[in-house]
Amino acid sequence: MARQSDGQAPRPRLERDRRSSPRGETAAWRTAVTCIEPNKILIRGYAVDELMGRLSFDEAVYLILRGELPSRDIGKLFGAVLVSSIDHGVTPPSTLAALNVTTTGAPLAACVAAGVLGFGMYHGGDIEPCMRLIQLGLAHVRAGLTYTEASARVLGDLLEAGQRPPGFGHRIHTSDPRASRLLQLARELELDGEHVRMLRTYERALADRDAHGAQPLPLNVDGAIAAVCADIGFEPELGNALFIIARIPGLIAHANEERSRQAPLRQITAGDAAYDGPQPRRLPETRK
Amino acid sequence: MARQSDGQAPRPRLERDRRSSPRGETAAWRTAVTCIEPNKILIRGYAVDELMGRLSFDEAVYLILRGELPSRDIGKLFGAVLVSSIDHGVTPPSTLAALNVTTTGAPLAACVAAGVLGFGMYHGGDIEPCMRLIQLGLAHVRAGLTYTEASARVLGDLLEAGQRPPGFGHRIHTSDPRASRLLQLARELELDGEHVRMLRTYERALADRDAHGAQPLPLNVDGAIAAVCADIGFEPELGNALFIIARIPGLIAHANEERSRQAPLRQITAGDAAYDGPQPRRLPETRK
Amino acid sequence: MARQSDGQAPRPRLERDRRSSPRGETAAWRTAVTCIEPNKILIRGYAVDELMGRLSFDEAVYLILRGELPSRDIGKLFGAVLVSSIDHGVTPPSTLAALNVTTTGAPLAACVAAGVLGFGMYHGGDIEPCMRLIQLGLAHVRAGLTYTEASARVLGDLLEAGQRPPGFGHRIHTSDPRASRLLQLARELELDGEHVRMLRTYERALADRDAHGAQPLPLNVDGAIAAVCADIGFEPELGNALFIIARIPGLIAHANEERSRQAPLRQITAGDAAYDGPQPRRLPETRK
Amino acid sequence: MARQSDGQAPRPRLERDRRSSPRGETAAWRTAVTCIEPNKILIRGYAVDELMGRLSFDEAVYLILRGELPSRDIGKLFGAVLVSSIDHGVTPPSTLAALNVTTTGAPLAACVAAGVLGFGMYHGGDIEPCMRLIQLGLAHVRAGLTYTEASARVLGDLLEAGQRPPGFGHRIHTSDPRASRLLQLARELELDGEHVRMLRTYERALADRDAHGAQPLPLNVDGAIAAVCADIGFEPELGNALFIIARIPGLIAHANEERSRQAPLRQITAGDAAYDGPQPRRLPETRK
Repeated sequence: MARQSDGQAPRPRLERDRRSSPRGETAAWRTAVTCIEPNKILIRGYAVDELMGRLSFDEAVYLILRGELPSRDIGKLFGAVLVSSIDHGVTPPSTLAALNVTTTGAPLAACVAAGVLGFGMYHGGDIEPCMRLIQLGLAHVRAGLTYTEASARVLGDLLEAGQRPPGFGHRIHTSDPRASRLLQLARELELDGEHVRMLRTYERALADRDAHGAQPLPLNVDGAIAAVCADIGFEPELGNALFIIARIPGLIAHANEERSRQAPLRQITAGDAAYDGPQPRRLPETRK
Repeated sequence: MARQSDGQAPRPRLERDRRSSPRGETAAWRTAVTCIEPNKILIRGYAVDELMGRLSFDEAVYLILRGELPSRDIGKLFGAVLVSSIDHGVTPPSTLAALNVTTTGAPLAACVAAGVLGFGMYHGGDIEPCMRLIQLGLAHVRAGLTYTEASARVLGDLLEAGQRPPGFGHRIHTSDPRASRLLQLARELELDGEHVRMLRTYERALADRDAHGAQPLPLNVDGAIAAVCADIGFEPELGNALFIIARIPGLIAHANEERSRQAPLRQITAGDAAYDGPQPRRLPETRK
Repeated sequence: MARQSDGQAPRPRLERDRRSSPRGETAAWRTAVTCIEPNKILIRGYAVDELMGRLSFDEAVYLILRGELPSRDIGKLFGAVLVSSIDHGVTPPSTLAALNVTTTGAPLAACVAAGVLGFGMYHGGDIEPCMRLIQLGLAHVRAGLTYTEASARVLGDLLEAGQRPPGFGHRIHTSDPRASRLLQLARELELDGEHVRMLRTYERALADRDAHGAQPLPLNVDGAIAAVCADIGFEPELGNALFIIARIPGLIAHANEERSRQAPLRQITAGDAAYDGPQPRRLPETRK
Repeated sequence: MARQSDGQAPRPRLERDRRSSPRGETAAWRTAVTCIEPNKILIRGYAVDELMGRLSFDEAVYLILRGELPSRDIGKLFGAVLVSSIDHGVTPPSTLAALNVTTTGAPLAACVAAGVLGFGMYHGGDIEPCMRLIQLGLAHVRAGLTYTEASARVLGDLLEAGQRPPGFGHRIHTSDPRASRLLQLARELELDGEHVRMLRTYERALADRDAHGAQPLPLNVDGAIAAVCADIGFEPELGNALFIIARIPGLIAHANEERSRQAPLRQITAGDAAYDGPQPRRLPETRK
């Protein structure tokens, strides 16, 4: 911020910082999400009772986050994004945080909150950085590079620094079925665009690298979610939010199972868990 | 627990309490929610990639909580339950907790967690007690009372004690559009049963009471959710969990709006908020 | 609440319940904890800069919770209460919740919050119920029973129901050194009173019971804290709060150790931990 | 990380990242904080029962965080740091988050956790950045600049970018009594060193700037804490941790007052609060 020519120090954004300015009056502020009046609830302008039974929760989530209704196809793809991340068993640290709080007899909301706090930078937090990584590659493309050149530029820097590219690599899955399915669905619905294309270029580059003996870094579900959501218009700021929304039912299912099945204050060792749920089964062809 | 005839004090359940017994080995334990193996994720037995694109998130939430797929109609009604509670503006204390954390620059997960912690006994916590209130009335009915007699018995005790029956009363809505719509949808789908019937009996009794000058206690959305979910098979323990799942997107929308629009560390006064979102609008007749 | 003689249904406390009354204006409200004005901060009336360097943090905690300064002896005993609970290693579920959040790269405040959420009903929550158990015994004493008779009455009911008396039993310690020391210090400072006497009566009764082959239920630190704090004037409502205050530094020490020593996203198994800290050492006789 | 001369891509730290490597066995890990064995609890090597009554909680907090006992003077100064931040009334967003959760009837641990989550980047988070700012200035000094030159360099960059230097500025206090007192105490105890000197240089430079019409940026308590704690050996990583430890009793006092005095589900407007606590009073000269 340049000095003004009259010699006065520029007025920085400091006034907006409550710590440096005197305590001001509270001014009116505005919110555009939901309008509440007696007997009237508008979600981004739509009466909630009109949405009930006509919009799925998937579509309502899209509406409240984006401000507009999704098309049917986008709603379907977005629903698949949420379903993909609904749970991942008992070993994620977020689920273990929730289980450890559950075993102390805390109420369900506390158990869920503890699980949500486990969505830190390294867990459930890959979507936003991957969206930015894709944006970075596309910026190079817009500047004249081919997709392949852009990929080499972006990934090169990252790997040189010893960092794992967000959206790739998984401790368990060498071929993440959720990633494949999501990209397939995007293709079927013709919603895949430049972001998916950039992601696929990264994927190929990393696969070639794997072929030369380096550590495998297959595409994971966060990478697929990042590309797909970017192609349907989401900004990176909401990337990780989608993971939170999706994972809450999984956290609740585990907390509920813990309090139903187990004695309080038990020592929870994830490695000692065995699955005793339903055997693998198929969705019926037709469902009533 | 009766004394054993040999004079020994009974062995209470104390052994299961970690505090009173010596530190034991961790035993194998079992979980029935999700099976994770390399490249395979089963949600209650169904491959998650098979669910993606074929099950809505609503239906997947039902599946992971209940353990079985919902019928199409139940899935639709359950989705309406979730949509009904997706948000309620900036004034709920849970949303204010989330906004106050947001204004301090905390990451989104922390903002959401703070909001979830605001789902205490008196807020978002009406569903479970209302389910139990309905169960109580139905227990009287099974014992031989009419619905009306059961209602008088149950409500009478509660009101004598100066307590508001859970599921009734609202600080803003005298005729909660979400409650009406949910019960209407249950009727249309022929999923309303004895729990809805008991709820309606309570509603009429309270309306009669209102007519005599007492404070109005109209049916609210938590009451409708309680009855409807009980009729489609949910146990009270999961009642409030549904509210948590539904409200997360609303919390995120508000936190995201706060960090996008406002300076940090502002004093947030709910009463100073004005709505500047979309004007009331209708869902299109057909949606593509 | 009796019916008024004019036939009207009594006005229950429902008006105070925000859900049942129309949205009212926000009224002025009062707070007695801290007075803030420009360049002036009064903690329960005392200028904070006057307290700094003259009151220990222990004493300031007592002051802000109780509203009055402690005597030197009470301050010393209260400090010992806090020190007693400062940490208990890596195995408590609260610490594991904090560690699991830490390993995901969440900020320290989120890690601490997750640990705090682990202070549920069964963990760190024994102090308040034990204070109430002691109060119950003393109520019998005031009604004419001897301490021994009161103890038999109170404990008898509890054990018959298969419940562990709060304040007794521990998964590791058969003779909790913190409990012994705290009661010894209370005796030395002549601050032990009727609550400690009631607790000691419970302790003897349970020891006699142990002698007959039942499961040992030795006094634990929560019981000692309960009795001692009651004798210096604390009400049960703040019992568990003392544990929260005391344990925060322990949670922070563990979270800080985790992020300093370990890679992110590790599987944390408490049973695999080994201590590599300082060898046992004594406080120096004199400290400068 | 340089490429190895054999042409192979370097092995990055990716193996340590759980996401990219196969699921490994849990290895033994080590903790140096607390040793727990039957009837033995060592806090950094000292038996906790030996600490009780001989160490204040202040000193025990220092011990568990730093690993060694403080000298008496350092313990006294550290205690003053904690006392300085014990509370700041009802207006901080962290306290409002806690109050909003309290009004919903959540348990105390949930209220406290919500408050802790409000210690985000901009609130309670000034200590660590200020410690780093001081370190930055001292690095210039070690490289040959005078304190004044170093200050001009560091502050110049910051203010040009429109950023408020951490440790300076306050929305209410133009002369923060806590900051003055803390630095005075450090001087009296002869514990002030190069970090305090650097801070004072910043302070003078900003005061000169104020004199030319810019927005005042007086030293605040976080700046004083940063300098003082750095001079007694704390690393920046624990800077904000001290604020968390100190503020917990304040959060609890407010949550406890809220649940004692107020009806549930009230609309909490900080600006409507009036102080009705004790009138200003002095610490007695001598205390028994």
